[in-house]
Amino acid sequence: MASHDETSAEDRLIARHFAPLATHPGALGLTDDAAFITPPPGSEIVLKADAIIGGVHFFPEDDAATVAQKALRVNLSDLASKGATPLGYLLSLALPKDIGEAWLARFAQGLREDAERYGCPLFGGDTDRTPGPITISIAMVGSVPAGTMVRRAGAKPGDLVFVSGSVGDSTLGLVLRKGLDVPLSEAQRQHLASRYLLPQPRNALAEAVRMHASASMDVSDGLAGDFAKLCRVSQVGAEVEAARVPLSDAARAVVAADPKLLLTALSGGDDYEIVCTVPPTKAAGFRAAAEAAGVPVSEIGRVIAGQGARFLGADGQPLVFERASFSHF
Amino acid sequence: MASHDETSAEDRLIARHFAPLATHPGALGLTDDAAFITPPPGSEIVLKADAIIGGVHFFPEDDAATVAQKALRVNLSDLASKGATPLGYLLSLALPKDIGEAWLARFAQGLREDAERYGCPLFGGDTDRTPGPITISIAMVGSVPAGTMVRRAGAKPGDLVFVSGSVGDSTLGLVLRKGLDVPLSEAQRQHLASRYLLPQPRNALAEAVRMHASASMDVSDGLAGDFAKLCRVSQVGAEVEAARVPLSDAARAVVAADPKLLLTALSGGDDYEIVCTVPPTKAAGFRAAAEAAGVPVSEIGRVIAGQGARFLGADGQPLVFERASFSHF
Repeated sequence: MASHDETSAEDRLIARHFAPLATHPGALGLTDDAAFITPPPGSEIVLKADAIIGGVHFFPEDDAATVAQKALRVNLSDLASKGATPLGYLLSLALPKDIGEAWLARFAQGLREDAERYGCPLFGGDTDRTPGPITISIAMVGSVPAGTMVRRAGAKPGDLVFVSGSVGDSTLGLVLRKGLDVPLSEAQRQHLASRYLLPQPRNALAEAVRMHASASMDVSDGLAGDFAKLCRVSQVGAEVEAARVPLSDAARAVVAADPKLLLTALSGGDDYEIVCTVPPTKAAGFRAAAEAAGVPVSEIGRVIAGQGARFLGADGQPLVFERASFSHF
Repeated sequence: MASHDETSAEDRLIARHFAPLATHPGALGLTDDAAFITPPPGSEIVLKADAIIGGVHFFPEDDAATVAQKALRVNLSDLASKGATPLGYLLSLALPKDIGEAWLARFAQGLREDAERYGCPLFGGDTDRTPGPITISIAMVGSVPAGTMVRRAGAKPGDLVFVSGSVGDSTLGLVLRKGLDVPLSEAQRQHLASRYLLPQPRNALAEAVRMHASASMDVSDGLAGDFAKLCRVSQVGAEVEAARVPLSDAARAVVAADPKLLLTALSGGDDYEIVCTVPPTKAAGFRAAAEAAGVPVSEIGRVIAGQGARFLGADGQPLVFERASFSHF
């Protein structure tokens, strides 16, 4: 007789590729309908969901391990900016029929490496076939001590504006990938390309942000547009000096070759840095905590009363962006 | 100058259709990078993610409100079977370009109604454009008192097997929709069609399950295959009498017209009932709690030592299923 115990293709796929990633005891080896976690005592749970889609957020030919890590890291970046520690994630995976074992094995490998790197095991999820492109939906779960999640609201006039790392690499990497011809060294080209391919979220900075920032967000849709959102929700204005916004050597070389690409760097997407505001009395503590965490931070401007985040050029006049923020929508 | 404050199409869509659904204070009106929730004291968090895809799990012409509710309810059903109370959900929505305001308004309306019905507000999420079909990924968050989530593992020989409501309506509804000609009243036809279109998850039964069941799962991929999974994880066998499996009047009429459709009813998907095992000493309490909750439950068999969940026909012989469980994969 046909076995009632026969497992479906989905069950086999999950058992082979994903169950080994479900290292948290509450994930029950992905053999149950749901997972459970015990929140750390005195904590609140921080939740974020974001999806990436083949042909929209990544190229179909990209390494599946990198795609998996991009899907995780765009969510990890949000948690970092909120001062939260990752606990784990749920994954909904929609796959075209022609996706094979090799792709899945690489994809799972990417998840496995990042689970160790960021401390975020797989809690559960589902897989489906789709007639459309690969669609990877992640719901990330983290925690903070109760009442300490850093919000976009909270910036006050007088606060200093900080941004982590360097801005614009990813969007310039995409511009190069699409064919822009600029004289760059191979190392510079590689740097920009890798920033587009794989976000390096600033989870190491999360505690510094939580202890010192009055408001914070991650920079995923362009610094100019994202910081404008923070100012709007905080009901403040700001002045940022474009010359103080940190650029990598490679980005600097691109902008030297074509100065109008500075606006692209300041408004393009996929930086996955953190922009935050810090009261002047806490600035030294923030700098010290960031240094201890090994994350470079740059002071780029100041919060003021009023409305609008203005980016000032070398002449002291506001820069004019064609569009202040990038949208895949 | 172009405003740095300009909002993107995605921001406007979220503000118009989804921000009104974010009634939980920790959702921050969907103006932040993440949401936060304070878990009920002494609780653990229960997590489940499941996606539905146009052309795979629903028909493109289905009412968008019904599609939204199906996406929520397939996840709510899992929480119910674990004995968990919903807290809220994250939504990742991938939309083709031709989706208009009318569709989105209906979709949001469906979410709004179910948020009230089941107590599950929107915590956050994202929207993207896709070149593929509508893809709706839900991550549902619930809670149970710590240590009380009911698992698939836990059934013991001697336990009684219960199933809620009636089995097979949805899959027979789909068979009818695909053109099977059976003499049915309009009301019967309507009943089966509506069970396919819109799950009615048994969240009202969650507490009864949590207080009395030794093991439990929701029936989403067919009773025969799903219950076999429960038995496998519990490392037990079971004997279920097919004649005791509850069928609706409409399903009974279909099976009377074509007796082999009984196997379809027992193994087809999308029931969203709960199958659980209950120790004999707790059976009376379970029945009373289910009655108090207004959810019909039927005793259909018994757990035994060994392996395999056998469904016995009127002749006492095991039924032979072509496939014991339905898979969209």
